[in-house]
Amino acid sequence: MAANKRKKLTHLDRKGEARMVNVSAKAVTQRRAVATAEVRVNPKTMALIQKGGVPKGDVFAVARLAGIHAAKETSRLIPLCHPLPIDHIDVRIQARPPQRIVIRAEAAIAARTGVEMEALVAAAIASLTIYDMCKAVDRGIVIGPIQLEEKSGGRSGPWRRTS
Amino acid sequence: MAANKRKKLTHLDRKGEARMVNVSAKAVTQRRAVATAEVRVNPKTMALIQKGGVPKGDVFAVARLAGIHAAKETSRLIPLCHPLPIDHIDVRIQARPPQRIVIRAEAAIAARTGVEMEALVAAAIASLTIYDMCKAVDRGIVIGPIQLEEKSGGRSGPWRRTS
Amino acid sequence: MAANKRKKLTHLDRKGEARMVNVSAKAVTQRRAVATAEVRVNPKTMALIQKGGVPKGDVFAVARLAGIHAAKETSRLIPLCHPLPIDHIDVRIQARPPQRIVIRAEAAIAARTGVEMEALVAAAIASLTIYDMCKAVDRGIVIGPIQLEEKSGGRSGPWRRTS
Amino acid sequence: MAANKRKKLTHLDRKGEARMVNVSAKAVTQRRAVATAEVRVNPKTMALIQKGGVPKGDVFAVARLAGIHAAKETSRLIPLCHPLPIDHIDVRIQARPPQRIVIRAEAAIAARTGVEMEALVAAAIASLTIYDMCKAVDRGIVIGPIQLEEKSGGRSGPWRRTS
Amino acid sequence: MAANKRKKLTHLDRKGEARMVNVSAKAVTQRRAVATAEVRVNPKTMALIQKGGVPKGDVFAVARLAGIHAAKETSRLIPLCHPLPIDHIDVRIQARPPQRIVIRAEAAIAARTGVEMEALVAAAIASLTIYDMCKAVDRGIVIGPIQLEEKSGGRSGPWRRTS
Amino acid sequence: MAANKRKKLTHLDRKGEARMVNVSAKAVTQRRAVATAEVRVNPKTMALIQKGGVPKGDVFAVARLAGIHAAKETSRLIPLCHPLPIDHIDVRIQARPPQRIVIRAEAAIAARTGVEMEALVAAAIASLTIYDMCKAVDRGIVIGPIQLEEKSGGRSGPWRRTS
Repeated sequence: MAANKRKKLTHLDRKGEARMVNVSAKAVTQRRAVATAEVRVNPKTMALIQKGGVPKGDVFAVARLAGIHAAKETSRLIPLCHPLPIDHIDVRIQARPPQRIVIRAEAAIAARTGVEMEALVAAAIASLTIYDMCKAVDRGIVIGPIQLEEKSGGRSGPWRRTS
Repeated sequence: MAANKRKKLTHLDRKGEARMVNVSAKAVTQRRAVATAEVRVNPKTMALIQKGGVPKGDVFAVARLAGIHAAKETSRLIPLCHPLPIDHIDVRIQARPPQRIVIRAEAAIAARTGVEMEALVAAAIASLTIYDMCKAVDRGIVIGPIQLEEKSGGRSGPWRRTS
Repeated sequence: MAANKRKKLTHLDRKGEARMVNVSAKAVTQRRAVATAEVRVNPKTMALIQKGGVPKGDVFAVARLAGIHAAKETSRLIPLCHPLPIDHIDVRIQARPPQRIVIRAEAAIAARTGVEMEALVAAAIASLTIYDMCKAVDRGIVIGPIQLEEKSGGRSGPWRRTS
Repeated sequence: MAANKRKKLTHLDRKGEARMVNVSAKAVTQRRAVATAEVRVNPKTMALIQKGGVPKGDVFAVARLAGIHAAKETSRLIPLCHPLPIDHIDVRIQARPPQRIVIRAEAAIAARTGVEMEALVAAAIASLTIYDMCKAVDRGIVIGPIQLEEKSGGRSGPWRRTS
Repeated sequence: MAANKRKKLTHLDRKGEARMVNVSAKAVTQRRAVATAEVRVNPKTMALIQKGGVPKGDVFAVARLAGIHAAKETSRLIPLCHPLPIDHIDVRIQARPPQRIVIRAEAAIAARTGVEMEALVAAAIASLTIYDMCKAVDRGIVIGPIQLEEKSGGRSGPWRRTS
Repeated sequence: MAANKRKKLTHLDRKGEARMVNVSAKAVTQRRAVATAEVRVNPKTMALIQKGGVPKGDVFAVARLAGIHAAKETSRLIPLCHPLPIDHIDVRIQARPPQRIVIRAEAAIAARTGVEMEALVAAAIASLTIYDMCKAVDRGIVIGPIQLEEKSGGRSGPWRRTS
């Protein structure tokens, strides 16, 4: 890949200064991205989330809404992201006892630039919301990995995580 | 721990409905929290961040500012967090070649409730900003673990991660 | 209407979980919506708003701007609303002494989804702003009804309130 | 009430220009406010919300969170409101079949100014969120009355709705 | 002033990295700041603003509200500013025909850090709003100078512009 | 220009009330705008910014990011601006010792309305951020002129400052 001119950080200009990429000349195509995040809780916390008189749905319902809301805030959180009126954001949360909670966020838009960051922000904020709701009983909760799983659309075409 | 009445999710009321905790009766004390996050990049990406004509400072400078800004937005991102006029937020980022980038975020306030979420949000959004700035060359970047390291202040007193 | 498959809450998926509707496949059409709200004040308050040395225009000017601003914030206030770069928002306020103030908000856009919520949010926040500006003299002010009057565009076509 | 000097609109100055009231000299006291809102739906809509395969909790859970979130945004929605780091916001929603849904929002803070607007904004946005979630099946839903029920704290002391 | 250790940029740490200043240890004192801005318009534009069928009040009313609103957003616009629940913001606008419009913004708070930026942001955004409302007839409008006039409170004490 | 019907303030309707212009019927064209701002500092402050152990890049990096971020917030700051998902924003800052700092902001979009305000807001907030970062050593800093330099696209066509 000796001559690969694309191997540069597109958010930095020739002088190394941060910039927003100009997408005016890019085509409007259908974009889609999926990200995941994991939350590792204490088994006792999992029990509280799942039964213990506590409707599992509610912790996850709050986290799901927080993820959806945060996706809409992406361009205000990630400094060089373009503001995008996303067509779709979907956040799903599954308990995998005894310790794991898995979040999957999917975003879609017809636009000149992709929605990877929207999916990642949704997954991250949903994770942090679970932390917030459980922290009184379990401060040691660990979040991660948070990662892109797949994306499609745009000049660089489809991408899918292989490991 | 049979009789431990504190083992409940404080953000859910008796009916299991989400709520913001009423902190009116809590004392104003000096609160502090430290969170960390890791970002694992491809060694070639690390090289681009560190040299390759690209000033390392700028990728990290953008991420640091994004973290500081996001900390101030915490109550708008985490549904049941109280709005807090934080006194201090500090975000530090270190490259640990060949692959690891470590973010440390510290928040402080004199208030009726703590700033764990502010520190965690800062660390998470700084991580996602690094992802955003490098994603054109490295979509496989993995974020995590994101975790609280220590906190002090408030009725529950100091806490420090032990593992 | 026994077999009406459309009679479902579109913001809830098959499992009853809240979601944002995916509008990617919908056509971009011209959308328009009109909402109204009423504010019922004490006759003495109406007198203060209208004369009493107080320029009527200013209370209403502040409320009108608050409504316009709030319409732009709709997707941040209503959790499952799509962010929409609206083309138009118009808020009109009329005093109908001795007690009624009537707000009419109209929103328009060429988009894949409608602007009913933008019109309703504008009308509601304009009403609350009138309350805020008069509450020192009249805490008993009552707001409502707030309702959609008409909408057009989109697959479901035009709708107009009949009662 | 001939000589009542307090009977003026405090958000307008001597020239009738809108202003934010200077609360620097006011005492920090415990403030509390309760507001209510009603939503009137079609009985079939009520049935969908309550059973019909749809967990009643979720429509109300989304609305409750929207109300809590909106209360935190109050100073950004109501132009002359002071920004207040509220200590508490609680939103409760009850179905009263066949047609009524009742929202009750309570806000509290120790501050120099009250939280009436926070309670009213929470109730109003929770109402509008119910509208949003049901509008595909029932565009004719009517919101209101929205009103303050009681408030306490501050120089003007306690107030309670009498009719 | 050879040995003046305070002559440094407080928003940069020892390594030159941007940071928010930690104000935890500072005293809560009464803070106040006044800023001004000027807008220079074409005399014909001034005539339109002042008479020409156009109520002067409204252009200025919109600008005044925009300034008040922006002051409340200061910590979200200026990256290293602390979030402050300001007690007071006042924006006044005067026409000085044939060409000058003068904006004066005053902010006040009892806090650990000052409100200079709140006053400056209010003056700047009020100016830009006047530009926005007149730009269809006068794109050449020039804004400036924008400057701090005086401030008081805090360890550095009172300051007043001398030229 | 006796019969020039276009010489009116488009943000005010026939009754002089503020309104957002309805752009529904306008064509989507490529829009671009450039604005500049100047900041005048004390020569000692300039020295601190440029050398004095302080990396010049960082003060300007923070200001540049603040400008980019603020451009995305334009419709929330300028009351009658349309929300626009901008395609591009670029902020450049140059030191011109001994006293002047010059900011140039450029915005672009394919839309029904222009991006002059986005460019102006970016330039203004970048200027204010420089003020914020230097105010501990130089409260007398003066900002301005802030002005539009050129714009293109839309029915009114290209415009360029001539003086």
